[in-house]
Amino acid sequence: MQISQPTLLVDEKKCKENICRMLKKAESHKLIFRPHFKTHQSLEIGKWFKELGTNKITVSSLKMAEYFSEQWEDITVAFPLNILEINTINELAKKITLNVCIENIESIQFLKKSLKHKINFFLKVDIGYHRTGINAINDNLINSILKEAEKSPLINFLGFLGHAGHTYKSRNKKEINKEHNRSLKIMRNLKKRFIKKFPKLIVSVGDTPSCSVAENFLGVDEIRPGNFVFYDLTQNMIGSNNISQVAVAMACPIVALHKDRQEIVVYGGGIHFSKDKMVEKNRDIYGKIVKRKKNGWGDLIPGIYVKSLSQEHGIISCTKSFIEHHKIGDYLMILPVHSCMAVDAMQNLLTLDGKLLSKL
Amino acid sequence: MQISQPTLLVDEKKCKENICRMLKKAESHKLIFRPHFKTHQSLEIGKWFKELGTNKITVSSLKMAEYFSEQWEDITVAFPLNILEINTINELAKKITLNVCIENIESIQFLKKSLKHKINFFLKVDIGYHRTGINAINDNLINSILKEAEKSPLINFLGFLGHAGHTYKSRNKKEINKEHNRSLKIMRNLKKRFIKKFPKLIVSVGDTPSCSVAENFLGVDEIRPGNFVFYDLTQNMIGSNNISQVAVAMACPIVALHKDRQEIVVYGGGIHFSKDKMVEKNRDIYGKIVKRKKNGWGDLIPGIYVKSLSQEHGIISCTKSFIEHHKIGDYLMILPVHSCMAVDAMQNLLTLDGKLLSKL
Repeated sequence: MQISQPTLLVDEKKCKENICRMLKKAESHKLIFRPHFKTHQSLEIGKWFKELGTNKITVSSLKMAEYFSEQWEDITVAFPLNILEINTINELAKKITLNVCIENIESIQFLKKSLKHKINFFLKVDIGYHRTGINAINDNLINSILKEAEKSPLINFLGFLGHAGHTYKSRNKKEINKEHNRSLKIMRNLKKRFIKKFPKLIVSVGDTPSCSVAENFLGVDEIRPGNFVFYDLTQNMIGSNNISQVAVAMACPIVALHKDRQEIVVYGGGIHFSKDKMVEKNRDIYGKIVKRKKNGWGDLIPGIYVKSLSQEHGIISCTKSFIEHHKIGDYLMILPVHSCMAVDAMQNLLTLDGKLLSKL
Repeated sequence: MQISQPTLLVDEKKCKENICRMLKKAESHKLIFRPHFKTHQSLEIGKWFKELGTNKITVSSLKMAEYFSEQWEDITVAFPLNILEINTINELAKKITLNVCIENIESIQFLKKSLKHKINFFLKVDIGYHRTGINAINDNLINSILKEAEKSPLINFLGFLGHAGHTYKSRNKKEINKEHNRSLKIMRNLKKRFIKKFPKLIVSVGDTPSCSVAENFLGVDEIRPGNFVFYDLTQNMIGSNNISQVAVAMACPIVALHKDRQEIVVYGGGIHFSKDKMVEKNRDIYGKIVKRKKNGWGDLIPGIYVKSLSQEHGIISCTKSFIEHHKIGDYLMILPVHSCMAVDAMQNLLTLDGKLLSKL
């Protein structure tokens, strides 16, 4: 493998294992598996899912839906409907089964007069994350939206969709389960109130922490995890995965060694990793260094981490001995703090056997 | 202007005024003006500089040098030499005047045996930022590198280059000047020690804060500011500019209104703004909202700011009255915290009269 610039490497084996594990979990709980593709954003990696039987996906923008509509026929855009993109909505709705998220009456009124083809919609419900979504006990608003939707033959109600993004504040499996169970309770109550009128409605949830560790999916019909395909340091800190399951690493050329302050400068900055960080023992961490192995990477190297990032520079905090074992022109392998953002920042991905995986 | 997705708008007039102001400053101090193009990364904006007389530029990667080598013949790569990119170095050195940064003996030894065409180099000196560069009093290392360089007819020493990135910790003009003057002193001392042997050597400095506010450039031959072309909220906080000089704003569609918690959700997240933030009165700020005007934008709207970003969502903290004056399908104009990173995250830029400016 020839590394000359910051390169995001994908361990295909680990990645496929992550997919299989989550797929089996969905099957064992009789859940529809609709993985979120915003993490990898790659048609090629999409094919790995397809080969294993996935036929429904989630994305986070209409732009991403357009990209994946080349090969996927059933796509949910898990982002509040942006009425300014009505042209794209109509084009996609003509081509594929398009499912959108609605959380206000204005959007449904707009769709009613502007839609040219059939679409499905989820009502986006706030299940505790408080980023967006309808308050789950606001039956008045829910009923108004549903009533408005019924007036159009092109708008079909699918069910309730929630995202328990607050599980990211957890630091162990117990905390994840606590938040997950609280979210499920909200969703079950909603379902109970509306299932009579809409007997086919489904409940869709599924952040990566919950889907990775929970064993209770009572009342849930569909899961939409995304990050699990690669995992990252944040998921590891939360308690979602083992570090050995992280399936991406950034290879970064060493360009300067500073023995005096025990730092290495690599080519690999905020425009490659993104500026997402985590805090550990009061230290900001932008990545951690793993051992290079013949066919990929191994364990974390204790105490060696990315302490700061500027546009193109990454500053590695390390030891004198670590510096002595490296030279200008070597490269380090670094696990990202947030794989979704690092993938988005990069133009493509490279497998360990040198296959270039194009992405959006 | 039709906005349907997050769109980075450039106020061409403000941008050209920023360029003119800095150009005049360089002229009045008899400094070589070598602006850093990592901020805009656009051949079209490069033309605005060229029309005003600029003929030398700075970039932060060889990739960027390749892109700009289409129209520029004298390019400095202000990043420690990455020997793994020797092929690109040779291709560029054949085509243009390529100036690289050296800070260790290994890189110069590598160049000595691998170069096919003439290049110039700066010695990268640490002038207080402590990100990278040679300790400015390490004459032994400097002499060893220069001695090694002399052995090759293809390697030409240009002078000393420093970046006072620590001025970004300033919060007013006085603090900026203090750090700037400290950096200049280091550079003047260096120059004094080496000018006899290298009478043509130059000193190159020039972060945006220093170049914006300083009036003392004693001993400096060249400046390389970059961010000033657009400025941003960070520069404003530092004291480099007036808010009215910020020449970029992100237009973001409103997709949800939450009156209960006085928040608006826009389409515009970490993949558009980057995750760079600033802290003001103990609050994280990822952007600030400005008044929309017929031909661009006006003043900041007090107290209305981006409080968090996820991949595609931006959460605006605002007031009930602000929400009452907006609806789904409107868009907000948001000044970025760090324009270099926001520009890098976007695929192109749009002028206020609708010209699309392509970029790297």
